[in-house]
Amino acid sequence: MKSSENAVYADNQQVSRKRRISDEYLAGFVDGEGCFYVGFGKRKDLPLGWQVITEFHLSQNLRGRNILEAFKDRIGCGYIKPNHPNSPRDKTWVLIVKDRRDLREKLIPFFKRHPMRSGKHDDFIVFTKALEIIESGNHLKRDGLEAIVELVFKTSKTNLKKYSKQDLLNS
Amino acid sequence: MKSSENAVYADNQQVSRKRRISDEYLAGFVDGEGCFYVGFGKRKDLPLGWQVITEFHLSQNLRGRNILEAFKDRIGCGYIKPNHPNSPRDKTWVLIVKDRRDLREKLIPFFKRHPMRSGKHDDFIVFTKALEIIESGNHLKRDGLEAIVELVFKTSKTNLKKYSKQDLLNS
Repeated sequence: MKSSENAVYADNQQVSRKRRISDEYLAGFVDGEGCFYVGFGKRKDLPLGWQVITEFHLSQNLRGRNILEAFKDRIGCGYIKPNHPNSPRDKTWVLIVKDRRDLREKLIPFFKRHPMRSGKHDDFIVFTKALEIIESGNHLKRDGLEAIVELVFKTSKTNLKKYSKQDLLNS
Repeated sequence: MKSSENAVYADNQQVSRKRRISDEYLAGFVDGEGCFYVGFGKRKDLPLGWQVITEFHLSQNLRGRNILEAFKDRIGCGYIKPNHPNSPRDKTWVLIVKDRRDLREKLIPFFKRHPMRSGKHDDFIVFTKALEIIESGNHLKRDGLEAIVELVFKTSKTNLKKYSKQDLLNS
């Protein structure tokens, strides 16, 4: 590459770095790449034997790491870590927000102001409803857990679910 | 799911469908999911035996198809088709823009106004430079082809390249 071309790269990176990334841009980025995850984990010490996991994550390779940082700064919470630290091939990074107060007070309000526009909006709704149930403590009761399970199984990524509805509700 | 929850879904979908999706949102979405592709194809009838392919694409599953449509409407060009029509498993859709005039007059100006903020910005620069060389006709001469090859191989997705630098420059 000629030096003039390198200069163009450098100039563009400068512009790219200096200007604030808009909220709408970040929201669009998350619509493509983010995940509002609601899942379940076995926990013998809990009344129904199940823990409900709520976690926002956004993964990127090194080229997109700056977007993770920009979004983390914008919402003022979460942390960034290697996605699969033990994999020699997977060099991606992930921004994770799982602290429930951060989710409630920082992440969710952001996406209420800048809603998801694809079908990912459904995931966001399930996410917020699951969180509400958890915060009320009802996920520890059969009705509440059932409501969360129904919500989660209503979304489309059935193939990604580790446990079946039966596993979760008949134990 | 209870009927009140269905109502929330419906309401949210209404809001989601009615409001225009902002340019910045679309740009952020493309930063995550879009591709500014510059590649090469063998073409015996061309002076150097190589055709330079420039194509923008943006893929989504059914849940994100509305974003493809919104972006197509916004830039006023391109077409949407099943990504892999013969695959029983891959049900994704893709928005493609390859008409060079559309790229030059519609797509590129959009991303000059709303630049990519991740490393994808480099792909965009390579894409616009390759197009400039093609439009000048210089890609049919060794110097021009070489400049495009150098630009493309400078970007990071080396593993996705079908032909080696040697294939392209020594024929």
